[in-house]
Amino acid sequence: MTVHDLDTPAPVVDIDIVEQNLAKMQSYCDSHGLALRPHIKTHKIPHLAHRQVQLGACGITCQKLGEAEVMVAVGLTDILISYPLIGELKAKRLAVLAGTAKMTVAIDSDVALATATSAALSSGAEIGVLVEFDSGAKRTGVVSVEQALALAAQITETKGLRFDGLMTYPSTVETGLFVAGAKQAFDRAGISILVVSGGGTPRAWEAHTILGLTEVRVGTYVYFDRSQVEQGSATLYDCALHVYATVVSRPTEDRAILDCGSKSLSSDHSGTGYGLIREYPGAVIERLYEEHALVKLANSAAKPKIGERVRVLPNHACVVTNLHDEIFVASGENWIDTWKVAARGKTV
Amino acid sequence: MTVHDLDTPAPVVDIDIVEQNLAKMQSYCDSHGLALRPHIKTHKIPHLAHRQVQLGACGITCQKLGEAEVMVAVGLTDILISYPLIGELKAKRLAVLAGTAKMTVAIDSDVALATATSAALSSGAEIGVLVEFDSGAKRTGVVSVEQALALAAQITETKGLRFDGLMTYPSTVETGLFVAGAKQAFDRAGISILVVSGGGTPRAWEAHTILGLTEVRVGTYVYFDRSQVEQGSATLYDCALHVYATVVSRPTEDRAILDCGSKSLSSDHSGTGYGLIREYPGAVIERLYEEHALVKLANSAAKPKIGERVRVLPNHACVVTNLHDEIFVASGENWIDTWKVAARGKTV
Repeated sequence: MTVHDLDTPAPVVDIDIVEQNLAKMQSYCDSHGLALRPHIKTHKIPHLAHRQVQLGACGITCQKLGEAEVMVAVGLTDILISYPLIGELKAKRLAVLAGTAKMTVAIDSDVALATATSAALSSGAEIGVLVEFDSGAKRTGVVSVEQALALAAQITETKGLRFDGLMTYPSTVETGLFVAGAKQAFDRAGISILVVSGGGTPRAWEAHTILGLTEVRVGTYVYFDRSQVEQGSATLYDCALHVYATVVSRPTEDRAILDCGSKSLSSDHSGTGYGLIREYPGAVIERLYEEHALVKLANSAAKPKIGERVRVLPNHACVVTNLHDEIFVASGENWIDTWKVAARGKTV
Repeated sequence: MTVHDLDTPAPVVDIDIVEQNLAKMQSYCDSHGLALRPHIKTHKIPHLAHRQVQLGACGITCQKLGEAEVMVAVGLTDILISYPLIGELKAKRLAVLAGTAKMTVAIDSDVALATATSAALSSGAEIGVLVEFDSGAKRTGVVSVEQALALAAQITETKGLRFDGLMTYPSTVETGLFVAGAKQAFDRAGISILVVSGGGTPRAWEAHTILGLTEVRVGTYVYFDRSQVEQGSATLYDCALHVYATVVSRPTEDRAILDCGSKSLSSDHSGTGYGLIREYPGAVIERLYEEHALVKLANSAAKPKIGERVRVLPNHACVVTNLHDEIFVASGENWIDTWKVAARGKTV
């Protein structure tokens, strides 16, 4: 069977490019003495998580407990949940996981600390804790060294919890500055920072320049995508995931409709539309309905015919895989496998 | 059990509001002599499709064959695929469906006509055909009465196909003008237009003012959403679907983080953020990461605490349900059922 036998829209991954991407990032981290802890949010596929560990990753990262439950069930043993877990429902589930796997969580508040504490108490297993700090994204994370130290001090005093270090997203120049300040304050308090975990594929190749960083959390590098190409972390040749689509209508000379809408590509936008049609780089996907991609052909001399198949490079791989129950695996044009996206939809 | 027992993020539907919405639209269509053919793309749930038919719908609408396959398997018997089906893989699947259910398809090209023809030939069952025309959306659909008539003439001459009429999306003032022109031309050619199918919830309540319209295809009305409220087709009291979320971080006085990101709410944006927090209408969800909603609290005097639960009204219900494997059904605060989103991800 070949990729041409697939009905569209179809998310197709080129396994040779995936292998190359996995090896390259592992090699980069190895050569700089950085631990690699891949984020499985991009692929959500057991085979790829195992493969990442097999190649040298120290463990994996999950954003949600539901993802971790899938990964522990298939034998992954070292998992960081890089997300604040809040409340007793989450504590109970974390406790179950900690009974089987080495679990680490990131916290940025007393409430998240209480959740981790409750989980450790009911599981009996030790849970590692990183304190998350904000390095400029203004997302989660404490905003001062004092806050980080106060949480770390509480963690070290809490039975069942182990303070491992600090975490942030993404890794930035500010990361190094925060860590330098934290090192001094934590040293004075007699608390060791063993791990400094940074994240984000766009600037992954600069991770070794960030002072104090010990661990790299990256997800998108497994497939890359159009946004990564635009941000310079990859070239088009590194992009492993495409959505194969069919031209289903050509109402006018300058308009084509593809059968991949926001339910196949997501609504994640970039400056130049909702994805790149590899065969027609001058065409612009200027609007998505749920099942239609509206393609403007005014600046494309070549015009696709109805029934023609094209490959769309999505803007953002991580949200695309989360839309599909299965990913088709290809080597070149050969369709060699189909993988269930086992952690798809595990947002809880 | 109550909705408070659900772990978050959780898509919750208020069944009392759903019933009210279904009844109101059916009553509107009945009172104006319009057939209602609900689009199941919004809910993708067998129970609700059956309920719509039970209340008086003439059949259902699906966008993709995969949705229709789910609905035929659970006993729906009259289905319009309001989407151009292209190619032999699609023809074979359409043929199978036509062997069981009354199938109608919309076409806007010779290639789509060839696909329908092939399906009818191999199934032996008659397939109804609507010719889609463009009423201003510049999406799919022929752009002239002449094109519509040429396709209709071919359909009437094709064994196994039955020309039923015209279809468009959305219903607009231009719809009536196009239909008036078409009626004249089709009359001269001796071809009857029995069905004129229009669509779209935003202007559904004006359907009776559009000359010649016989059928209403609407999907979002089952749940409504923030976009519909902004467009005036519903009030906040008509909105049946919310994503329950938890505040997981409060890094600063004016920022809260919810555990529902673009993998729970989708990236569909409106002028004022990515959803409305019902308990904090002055708060703005100004950015989504995959699992984080960044909420700006500057204009909200009340500030939610970490661990607090809120209800987020999504901008666009149809893409939200497609992210979740299950929908939780509530009556008031009572959690009374859990429905599988059976046609979730059926984009092919």
